Amino acid sequence: MNYKIIKHVIGWVLKIESVCMLLPFLCAIIYGEKDMLFVYSICMFICAFFGFGLSFKAPERKSMYAKEGFIIVALSWIVMSIFGALPFYISKHIPSFVDALFETVSGFTTTGASILKDVEALPKSHLLWRSFTHWLGGMGVLVFLVAILPLSGGDNFYLMKAESPGPSVSKLVPKVKSTAKILYGIYIVMTIVQIVLLVLGDMNIFDSITLSFGTAGTGGFSTRNSGISEYSSYSQIVITIFMLLFGVNFSLYYLVLLGKGNSVLKSDELRAYTGIVLTAIIIISINCFGIFGTWFESIKHSAFQVASIITTTGYSTCDFDLWPSLSKTVLVALMFIGACAGSTGGGIKVSRFIILVKSIAKEIKIAAHPKAIHKITMDQRPVEHETVRAVNVFMAAYLIIFAFSILIISIDNFDFTTNFTAIAATINNIGPGLAKVGPVQNFSIFSPLSKIVLIFDMLVGRLEIFPLLILFSPYTWKK
Amino acid sequence: MNYKIIKHVIGWVLKIESVCMLLPFLCAIIYGEKDMLFVYSICMFICAFFGFGLSFKAPERKSMYAKEGFIIVALSWIVMSIFGALPFYISKHIPSFVDALFETVSGFTTTGASILKDVEALPKSHLLWRSFTHWLGGMGVLVFLVAILPLSGGDNFYLMKAESPGPSVSKLVPKVKSTAKILYGIYIVMTIVQIVLLVLGDMNIFDSITLSFGTAGTGGFSTRNSGISEYSSYSQIVITIFMLLFGVNFSLYYLVLLGKGNSVLKSDELRAYTGIVLTAIIIISINCFGIFGTWFESIKHSAFQVASIITTTGYSTCDFDLWPSLSKTVLVALMFIGACAGSTGGGIKVSRFIILVKSIAKEIKIAAHPKAIHKITMDQRPVEHETVRAVNVFMAAYLIIFAFSILIISIDNFDFTTNFTAIAATINNIGPGLAKVGPVQNFSIFSPLSKIVLIFDMLVGRLEIFPLLILFSPYTWKK
Repeated sequence: MNYKIIKHVIGWVLKIESVCMLLPFLCAIIYGEKDMLFVYSICMFICAFFGFGLSFKAPERKSMYAKEGFIIVALSWIVMSIFGALPFYISKHIPSFVDALFETVSGFTTTGASILKDVEALPKSHLLWRSFTHWLGGMGVLVFLVAILPLSGGDNFYLMKAESPGPSVSKLVPKVKSTAKILYGIYIVMTIVQIVLLVLGDMNIFDSITLSFGTAGTGGFSTRNSGISEYSSYSQIVITIFMLLFGVNFSLYYLVLLGKGNSVLKSDELRAYTGIVLTAIIIISINCFGIFGTWFESIKHSAFQVASIITTTGYSTCDFDLWPSLSKTVLVALMFIGACAGSTGGGIKVSRFIILVKSIAKEIKIAAHPKAIHKITMDQRPVEHETVRAVNVFMAAYLIIFAFSILIISIDNFDFTTNFTAIAATINNIGPGLAKVGPVQNFSIFSPLSKIVLIFDMLVGRLEIFPLLILFSPYTWKK
Repeated sequence: MNYKIIKHVIGWVLKIESVCMLLPFLCAIIYGEKDMLFVYSICMFICAFFGFGLSFKAPERKSMYAKEGFIIVALSWIVMSIFGALPFYISKHIPSFVDALFETVSGFTTTGASILKDVEALPKSHLLWRSFTHWLGGMGVLVFLVAILPLSGGDNFYLMKAESPGPSVSKLVPKVKSTAKILYGIYIVMTIVQIVLLVLGDMNIFDSITLSFGTAGTGGFSTRNSGISEYSSYSQIVITIFMLLFGVNFSLYYLVLLGKGNSVLKSDELRAYTGIVLTAIIIISINCFGIFGTWFESIKHSAFQVASIITTTGYSTCDFDLWPSLSKTVLVALMFIGACAGSTGGGIKVSRFIILVKSIAKEIKIAAHPKAIHKITMDQRPVEHETVRAVNVFMAAYLIIFAFSILIISIDNFDFTTNFTAIAATINNIGPGLAKVGPVQNFSIFSPLSKIVLIFDMLVGRLEIFPLLILFSPYTWKK
C-alpha cells in the first residue's frame, strides 16, 4: 500500500476545498454577512493548513494500483465532507456536528436531503456553499484533481474510475487528463447556459446560480422552504429540461461536439432513458389529471417530478406524497433506475438495467438453444464479462446494504414507507422520499444513529459502493 | 419441440390430481357432506377425463431437452391449478373463478394467502383439499411423477431441476427416479411424525392433518379464522419446530440417514440458516418483550413468527402488524431470505444469499490482490460459474418482476406498505404481509387484475421464475 500517495492526494483535495470556499466567502462580502466572512476565513485556513500539511512532501513513488485508487476516493470524500461541514458547525447554524455532516454529505453526494426545518433562515453564503457542494460533487473532485495534478495516466485512471458513476468508465480521448478537462469543460458551459436562461426569465441572479448548481450536480438543495413550487412555469420548465440533460452520459455531448450526432441517437442507454422518462410522464399526467385540472399543469408537474427523480436531483414543484398510489409507485421505481452512466446523476443507472435485462434474455435464449453462442451487446458492441460481473456484484452489495440500512433505521420506529423511501432517497442520492420524508418534510426526525446510516448510504450511493467496501474491509489492510 | 411428450406428462399430472381428490372425497364421506361428495365426484371425473385423453397415446419419441422440461413444469402447474380450483368454483363456495384460482394457486405454490373472509364457513372436505394442495405443491407434483413414470434418467432430471427450488439441484443417488422416491419418503415420514405429535397433544385429528400438510409444504392455510393463535403452546411449539425442519435442505436428512451427520453440521447453508433464525428470534423477542410481558411468551411468539416467515409458511399466532417497526422490518427481511434450497420453502433461499455475499467478498479480494485466483466456495467445494451466473440472472429477473408487479397492483390505490408486502408475500410464497394484507387480513380487497398479477407472482416464486419466463417468451416458440 502506497500510503504516501494517499496522504498526498487527500492533501490536494483539502487545498482545492479551501479554494472552493472562496465562493461563499465572496458571497458573504457581497451580501455584507460579516459573521460569515469570519467563519469562511477560518474554514479556508483550516482546510489549507491540513491540505498543505498532508501534501507538503511529494511522494517519491507515485505509482498506485486499483486498491489505492478506491481508498483515495473513499477517504477523500469522507475528509472533504468533514471539513465541508465546518462552516455550518462553526457558525452554529447547525449546532449538532452529525447534522452538519449529514447536510454536507447530502450536498457533495448530490442527494439534497436536508435536516433543516427552515432553509430560509440560513445566510446567503451558507446557501451558496450548500449548492456549490452539489456542483463539486456532481462531476467529482477527484476528476477535477485528475485534470490538474501531475500524475501518470494509469494512476489517474484508477482515481477517475473509482469516482465516476456507471458500470464501466470510458476515456473520451486517450489521455485521462484531457478526458477530465473535456468533461469539466462541458459541465461548466452547460451550467453557465442554464444560469443565463434562468436570469433571462424572472429569476434573480442568486437563485439562478444556486439552483443551477443544484441542477447541474443533480443535487436538489433549494434556497426556499417551498422548493421550486413558487417559481414561474418558465423557470420550472428550464429546470426540467436541464435536469434531464445533466442526467445524460457526458460522453454523448462530446460526440455531438465532434459532429458524431448520429451515433448519439443510436445509444441504447439514451433510448432507454428517453423511453422511461416519456412513459413515466404519460402515466403520471393521466393518473394525476384530476389533481391539476388542466393538461398543461398536469404534464408540467409530472415532467418536473419525473425528471427530478430519475436524474436523482430531488427538486419538487408540488407535494407528490399526496398523489395517487400508482404515480407514487412510478416515482419510487424511478428512484432506483436513476440516470445514465457517466452523468452527474445517481441511482442504479439505466445502463446497469439494460445489462440486467439483456442477461435475462440471454438465459432464456440459452434454454431454447443451448448450443448457440449468446453474447450481451450494448450499442452493437459485446459487453465484457468483467462488466457484467461487476454489475451483478454491484446489485448484490446494493441490495444487502439497502436491507441492513432499513433494519437499523427502523429502530426509530417510523412506518415502513418512511424507512424504505428514506433509504431509497439517500442511497440513490435523490433527496425526498415519501410519508415522513416526503418532499415537504425533512430528515431531522431521525436519531443520530440513523443519520450516520443515512450518511453512509449517501456516500455508498455516490461512490457506487466499492470504494467504501474496500476502505472498510479488513482484507484490504492485511499485509 | 416435442409437443407429444408435453401433452403426455400433463395428462399424467391430471390423472394424479384426480386420484388426489379422493382424499377430500373420503373426508366428505366421513363428515357426511353430501353436496361435496357430488362436487368431488364431478371434479375427479373431469380431471380423469382430460388426463386420460391427453396421455392416452404414449409418445414415440420420449426424449426431451431443458426447454421441454421448463415448459412441462410451467404448464403442469397452470393446468393443475385451473383444475384444482374447480371444487371451490362448482360448489359455489368461491363464486368468482379468479378467486377460486387464486386460492388454489396459493395452495399449490404453498403461499397460503387467502381471498376468503371466513374460512370456517367452508366444509371440511374443502379445508382438507386446500391444505392437501400445500402438501402436494411443497415437494412438487412433477417430482412425484418422476418417481413413478417410466422416463429416461436425463429427461427426469430436466423435470426435477425445473421444479425444485434452489440455485443448483443435486441428485442424492445416481438415479433420478430413486432420488425422487427418497425425497418423498422422507417427506411422508416427517409429515406423519408431526401429525402424531399434534394428536398426542390436545389437537383433534382433522386439524392435526390439515395443519401438518400446511407445515410440511410450508404453505400456511389454516382451518380457523384466527390462524394458529387459539391452539395450545405445546401445539404451537411443535409447529414451530416442524416449520424450521421443513425449511432445511432435504438432502441433509438423507445424509443423516446414511450416518453422515458430521458433514451435515458443516453445511454452510444450514449454519447460515440457523444463525439467521436465532438472530431474528433474539432481536424480536427483546423488541416485543413489552407486548408479551413474559420471556416465555415473547420468545414463543417470536420463534413461531420467525420460523413461519423465513420458511415462508405464513402461519401466525399473533397480529405482527402491531409489532414495533424494527420487528416488522426483520420479518420483511426474512420474507426475502426464505428457506434453504432443496426444502419445501420459498423465497430467494439462503444459499443464493451465501453465493451473493461471497461474490461481493471475492470482488473486494480482487481489488486488493488482482493477480491472485479467487474462487467462490460452498461447503468447501468451488461453486460452478454456471451456478453463480444463474443466481445473478435469477436476482435480476426477480427484482424486475417484483417492481412491475408493485406498479400494476398500485393501480388499486392502496398504500405502499400494503402493495410492497403483498408482492413480497406472494412472490416469496409466504401468505400474510403487513398493513391491509397483514396476518389478520386477507387478499379479497384487490381487483381481478391485481389478483391475476398475484397469481402469476405466486407461480413465479414457486417455480423460481425461469419455467414461466421460458413458457411466455416468444423466442421459445420460434422455429
